Amino acid sequence: MASILEQEIREQPEIMRRMIDQESKKVKAICDKLRGRFDYIIIAARGTSDNAARYAKYTLGSFNHFPIALATPSLFTLYNRPPQFKRSLIIGISQSGQSLDIGAVLNEARRQGQATLAITNFPDSPMGANADYVIELHCDIEHAICATKTYTSSLIAIALFSAFLADDQARFNQVKKIPDWMAQTILDCEPSLDRAERYRYLEHCAVIGRGFNYATAFECALKIQELTGIVAEPYSSADFRHGPIAMIDKGDPIIAIAPSGKVRDDLAKLINEVRARGGEFIIISDDSSLLKQGKLGMPIPTDIPEWLTPMVAIIPAQIFALRLAEAMGVDVDKPHGLSKVTETW
Amino acid sequence: MASILEQEIREQPEIMRRMIDQESKKVKAICDKLRGRFDYIIIAARGTSDNAARYAKYTLGSFNHFPIALATPSLFTLYNRPPQFKRSLIIGISQSGQSLDIGAVLNEARRQGQATLAITNFPDSPMGANADYVIELHCDIEHAICATKTYTSSLIAIALFSAFLADDQARFNQVKKIPDWMAQTILDCEPSLDRAERYRYLEHCAVIGRGFNYATAFECALKIQELTGIVAEPYSSADFRHGPIAMIDKGDPIIAIAPSGKVRDDLAKLINEVRARGGEFIIISDDSSLLKQGKLGMPIPTDIPEWLTPMVAIIPAQIFALRLAEAMGVDVDKPHGLSKVTETW
Repeated sequence: MASILEQEIREQPEIMRRMIDQESKKVKAICDKLRGRFDYIIIAARGTSDNAARYAKYTLGSFNHFPIALATPSLFTLYNRPPQFKRSLIIGISQSGQSLDIGAVLNEARRQGQATLAITNFPDSPMGANADYVIELHCDIEHAICATKTYTSSLIAIALFSAFLADDQARFNQVKKIPDWMAQTILDCEPSLDRAERYRYLEHCAVIGRGFNYATAFECALKIQELTGIVAEPYSSADFRHGPIAMIDKGDPIIAIAPSGKVRDDLAKLINEVRARGGEFIIISDDSSLLKQGKLGMPIPTDIPEWLTPMVAIIPAQIFALRLAEAMGVDVDKPHGLSKVTETW
Repeated sequence: MASILEQEIREQPEIMRRMIDQESKKVKAICDKLRGRFDYIIIAARGTSDNAARYAKYTLGSFNHFPIALATPSLFTLYNRPPQFKRSLIIGISQSGQSLDIGAVLNEARRQGQATLAITNFPDSPMGANADYVIELHCDIEHAICATKTYTSSLIAIALFSAFLADDQARFNQVKKIPDWMAQTILDCEPSLDRAERYRYLEHCAVIGRGFNYATAFECALKIQELTGIVAEPYSSADFRHGPIAMIDKGDPIIAIAPSGKVRDDLAKLINEVRARGGEFIIISDDSSLLKQGKLGMPIPTDIPEWLTPMVAIIPAQIFALRLAEAMGVDVDKPHGLSKVTETW
């Protein structure tokens, strides 16, 4: 029988369809109330949700033109010296809504009279209950320790928020296609993924993405690390050239998140540079010429607008991490003594 | 004869003394002009300078109460969709002042009529020449590929900016003590550092810091990675509990940046948790009870205010990375084919 984790990975297309159906109107109403009320956005999040925040930086930055800062929760908790906000929106992202430090950021923001928005699977959680507005993830309970569906639904929450805030019906229509793209990707990747076994004795690797898929690189690395214990380091292609490129001399493979779009050429160039130094690639892309340059190529559909590729490109990464953990004999539903809700303060 | 890198590490106390002497008045004048003109700060930086930006997030956040965002340069370059700034200060940090993407962020900020500040070793560089204000690093030319003195002087630039912006003479007086603390640290750490050889065959490690020293964790990891090729991953203690803690089952050591102050107890707790799971530590601290818990303990002076520990705590980390690279037979002045100025766009 499939693991709980595998079931949760596979149910993502249906969960996303339901989330878009049930939450879109509410997100639109929230946007109608918030529009024009803030000049910049602060996001507080940890772990997987922090990777969703990275996606928000690019999506709300590029389409909605807001400067976005990731909060430093310890300034609110350990140091008790919070920044002074003015005309800002503070967004908390936490599937459980239980993180004390994320809650502390939102509470301080409310104290300062700022608008607050919670993105959570539990609207009745402390974070949900204390925020002015809530976007619900509609994921049922996520039983696997390793977050998958709550990550992709958080990205969709952000995409819906971006589209409605800009009153952009065309982009909302694009979001509605995500469940189909996800389902197609699960089918298309299956054959390549048996070959995850190649990496059974891998000790470390880098994961590279840029722009919208900078978040995908971080989330892919986190899934590999959580499930397998393999050290996986996320980088943008720009930062990778500032030093870490030295590591490829040791033969470690690099996972490249390289969909068509504005970052494609930069990634293609890096792939060539690294291959010239003897490096080996695992590639997630819709571009068949790039896929061929990987020892392992995992295809995604070709017609996805770049800003929505992160929700789809993470799927092969999730399954890759799952298959690799299985090849290593890990109990993927209870990996390495991790717990679902991590208390941080 | 000592390597260029070692000479540059050792000259830091003198460079910092000169930088503080020669630049403080100018920084004060810049602050007098900028005070009250902005509500939040955006920082654009890459590589080592990005770690200085992490320090700025905590220092300008906690003492000056500004929300701070790290810029996403690709929104300005690849995507050509920059955010809309209002009443903001945009700071670029680049020792060379040559990074095209950092320059693009500052140019767009000027186009939008925002205040711009460059922190650079080359005031006449493109970034320096285009900014409204410049803080100069006074480091002479940094010949080693691996940045050391330009990192610590960037931190001092930020500390001076924070103190003068708040018109806080007491904190300025604290900054003036940094060169002595640095010199003392170089002396005190020498004996422990011969033991860097223990890690000759190390393949990966984690580096943990929080708050002001979150930056130190990133910079320590980057130096180890650049000089030795060992995979070193930086984490805050909070994020480390969200998954990566699983890696310690493999016996990898953890470097903890754990000075006295608000984060000390959190770090001490994590050290206990990890040691209970069999993990091994390298510890940089002024606290003798914590230092004893490390297989290798590197002391810093006891009387440093927490906000200034990053300039001092990075020194043992730099020397540790240097000694380890030497033990591995690396030419530390030309490690792994890295180049000094990395072109990113």
